Amino acid sequence: MVELKQDNYRVETSARHVHLSQKDFTTLFGPSAELAIVKPLTVQGEFKSDKTVTIVGPKRNLERVAVLGPFRQKSQVEISVTDSYTLGVKDVPVRMSGDLQGSAPVTLLGAEGSLSLQEGLIIAQRHLHVNRMDMEKLGLHNGDAVSITVGKMRQATFHNVVVRESNVDFPTVHLDTDEANAAC
Amino acid sequence: MVELKQDNYRVETSARHVHLSQKDFTTLFGPSAELAIVKPLTVQGEFKSDKTVTIVGPKRNLERVAVLGPFRQKSQVEISVTDSYTLGVKDVPVRMSGDLQGSAPVTLLGAEGSLSLQEGLIIAQRHLHVNRMDMEKLGLHNGDAVSITVGKMRQATFHNVVVRESNVDFPTVHLDTDEANAAC
Repeated sequence: MVELKQDNYRVETSARHVHLSQKDFTTLFGPSAELAIVKPLTVQGEFKSDKTVTIVGPKRNLERVAVLGPFRQKSQVEISVTDSYTLGVKDVPVRMSGDLQGSAPVTLLGAEGSLSLQEGLIIAQRHLHVNRMDMEKLGLHNGDAVSITVGKMRQATFHNVVVRESNVDFPTVHLDTDEANAAC
Repeated sequence: MVELKQDNYRVETSARHVHLSQKDFTTLFGPSAELAIVKPLTVQGEFKSDKTVTIVGPKRNLERVAVLGPFRQKSQVEISVTDSYTLGVKDVPVRMSGDLQGSAPVTLLGAEGSLSLQEGLIIAQRHLHVNRMDMEKLGLHNGDAVSITVGKMRQATFHNVVVRESNVDFPTVHLDTDEANAAC
């Protein structure tokens, strides 16, 4: 697996979050609610919204989970392995964003309603957002797997970081909180 | 850094836990309490006991944290980085077990009392327990740092795994829950 040089990317931590379809958003927050931008994210057009939901687990709930925007075609809930233990859910698959078929079921609570999804709960496969120009420059292709090294005293090399063409100004690795907390 | 071959070690996950001095144990559980063995651990002589404590944090508490035995000279509390966020404590140092000088303060609750330690709260540096014979066989020395690779779909290579001479039947890597959950 190609190991990228450390000055070729930056690393961001992606905490648990939710993407919603417009229909599911209305179910959770009511017909008059709007998804307001609180903070733009690194991938152009994506943002942290003013809304949060509760993820309901058989063991415990996770509260105040950020809803990201804009709306997506299908709702999707991204958690860490640690979160799956907190919730008490098993067999949450590791998937790339959007690859939801056969993923785990999940129940959400919003300010105005609740929603049970048959699928949509995933552990996000770590990935590298790269724009088309940088992809050519680095000799990468959409879907390639690369290795990246992060951390200081607890340095780690993560393999199987999946390359994904995105609208970013600089190659950006997204790790989840388990990965970021394991390598710092 | 030397990378060990995967058939030269096994990997165990070490969840948050507490080692207590006999004096601190009495403070927490009363003068008539005894530390009973529930399950022997891989390092010979070490065991999971029948007692648990609560770690008190400024933000939240962590309950039912295992007390390991036997007693130690100084009490020590080992948590993950994720746990430090849950508790709401900052600047918990990454340390090898027993290296407590200048580590973080912590408050514990037991069945019969509470205890505030000026130091003793650490994030355990990942480490490799090896007996003397295997150390010679593998060309390792106490205190060496090695790299080890774990996980399947989310494979990762952890560097700075510190070699520690121990009474184990086979070389055993101890990862914390963040590390184990980041590489599975």
